[in-house]
Amino acid sequence: MIIVGEKINTSRKSIAAAVEAQDVDFISEVAREQAEAGAHYIDVNAGTFLDKEVGYLCWLVEVVQNAVDLPLCLDSPNPKALAEAIKHHKGEPMINSISLEKERYEALLPVVTDRPCRVVALCMAETSMPNTVEERVQAGAQLINKLTNEGIPLEKIYLDPLVQPVSVDTGMGTAVLGAIQSIMNDLPGVNTICGLSNISFGLPMRSLINRNFLALCMNSGLSAAILDPTDKQLMATLLSTDMLLGRDEYCENFIEAYQSGHISGLS
Amino acid sequence: MIIVGEKINTSRKSIAAAVEAQDVDFISEVAREQAEAGAHYIDVNAGTFLDKEVGYLCWLVEVVQNAVDLPLCLDSPNPKALAEAIKHHKGEPMINSISLEKERYEALLPVVTDRPCRVVALCMAETSMPNTVEERVQAGAQLINKLTNEGIPLEKIYLDPLVQPVSVDTGMGTAVLGAIQSIMNDLPGVNTICGLSNISFGLPMRSLINRNFLALCMNSGLSAAILDPTDKQLMATLLSTDMLLGRDEYCENFIEAYQSGHISGLS
Repeated sequence: MIIVGEKINTSRKSIAAAVEAQDVDFISEVAREQAEAGAHYIDVNAGTFLDKEVGYLCWLVEVVQNAVDLPLCLDSPNPKALAEAIKHHKGEPMINSISLEKERYEALLPVVTDRPCRVVALCMAETSMPNTVEERVQAGAQLINKLTNEGIPLEKIYLDPLVQPVSVDTGMGTAVLGAIQSIMNDLPGVNTICGLSNISFGLPMRSLINRNFLALCMNSGLSAAILDPTDKQLMATLLSTDMLLGRDEYCENFIEAYQSGHISGLS
Repeated sequence: MIIVGEKINTSRKSIAAAVEAQDVDFISEVAREQAEAGAHYIDVNAGTFLDKEVGYLCWLVEVVQNAVDLPLCLDSPNPKALAEAIKHHKGEPMINSISLEKERYEALLPVVTDRPCRVVALCMAETSMPNTVEERVQAGAQLINKLTNEGIPLEKIYLDPLVQPVSVDTGMGTAVLGAIQSIMNDLPGVNTICGLSNISFGLPMRSLINRNFLALCMNSGLSAAILDPTDKQLMATLLSTDMLLGRDEYCENFIEAYQSGHISGLS
C-alpha cells in the first residue's frame, strides 16, 4: 500500500498560516512526522492561495525535500503551478492530477511526459463527475490509453475513481469499490489511488466511516491512498487490513507498528 | 445482516456464575441488552459445564425466552444437549452446529429435521479443520447437498467457514473471505455465518482486528455473524459497512444508531 501523506495542504488553517509566514521549521516538522509515520510520498498543495499559489508551491517543494528524503505528490488544480513546481523537485514526483478535461489535459501532457513521473489521473468524463462504476472504468480506460500512447508506463499511472458522499447517493460507496476492482482486475499493473474523506461528507462519525471505507477499498485492490499517516486509528485499520488480506508475513508489520506506538485502536 | 448475540456463553465467568446460581435476573438482563442492541437471535451456550450442560442449557432457553421475544441460537458441541434444549424452545431456533463428522451428523440429523429450524453447518472435513478456500467450499457443498436432500431448505442453512488465527497462518483471513465469496456466489440463497474473534488470537489489539475482519467478511457477502451487539465500536463498523456497501437507504440506520447512542467510534 503506497501512502501519500496529505497534511501539507493550505486548506488546513495551520498550514496556510505557516506558508504565508514562510515558516520552514513548521512545514519541515509536518513533513517529517508523516515520513516517520510511514508516508511514501508527501503531498504538497497550496491551491487555496490562487494567485500566489505558484510561488508558494515551489517554496513548499524546496522546504519539504530539504526536510525529508521522499518524493512529493505535487497537487494542484492549476497546470501552471504543477509545471513550475516540478522544476524544483528532485527525483521522480507524483503529479496530482490529469483528467480528460481538454484544456487541463493539453496543458499537463508536456509536464508529465517531459521527465519520469507518476501521474494521478481522474476517472471522470470531460466535464462531469462520475456516478456509476462504468463511467469511472470507461474514463480510466480512456486515460490509460492516451497516457500509455504518450509513453507513460502503465505502472506509473494512478487512477483516482473519485470518491463522492454516500450521504448524497447510497450507491457511491459500491460505485468506487466496483470501479477499483474492475480496474485492478482488467488492467494488471496499473495503480489506483483515492482520498477517503469525501465518502463521509454530511455524516456523523466521519473518521470511523473513512477508516472502514479504506478497509473496503483495500479489499477491492486499491494500491495507494492519500491520507494522514499520523492518524493512529486510520493506520491501525490500514495495517490490520493488510494483515487480514494476507499481505503481512508473520504479522510482522502490524506487531511492529503496535510495539512502536504507531497505531492505536482506542483514541 | 443477521446478528446472533454471543454473550450468554458459560465460557464467560459472569455467565457461568449466574447459571450456577440460577440467577434469572442477570441472565434476563444480558438477553435484553443484546435484544435492545439489535440482536436477531440470542446464542445460549453452557458447554463448559459438561455433565450439567443439558439441564443448564434447557434452563437458559426458558429464562431467555421469557425475557425477550426472540428466537435463540442453541449452541453446543453435544448433540444430546441440543436435542433436549430444542424441546424447550418456542418458535424456530437456530441450531449450532452440525458437521460432516459422522457421529455428530447422525445424532443431530433427527433433531434438525424434526421441526423447522435454522442450522449452522461447519465447513470442515470429517475430522480436520480446513485450511484452504477449496476445503471449506467442498465441505460446505457436501453439507448443503446432504441437508437439502433431507428436506432442509437452502435458505435455512448457515455455513460457517471456520475462522482460524491469522497469527498462525497469514492466509487464514483470505481463506475465509474467499470461501464466503465463493459460497455466496455459487449457491444463491444459502447463508454464511461466523464468529470473528478467532482471527485475532495471539495478536495485540484484538477488538480492532475483529472489527476490521467483520467489515471484510461483509464485503465478501457474509449474511450473519455471532458477535457482541452491545460492543458499540463493533456495531459502528457493522452499520457503517452496511452503509458503505449501499445497503442502508438514506443512511437511515447508521444515523439513527448514532443518534440513539448505539454506536461509537471512540471508546
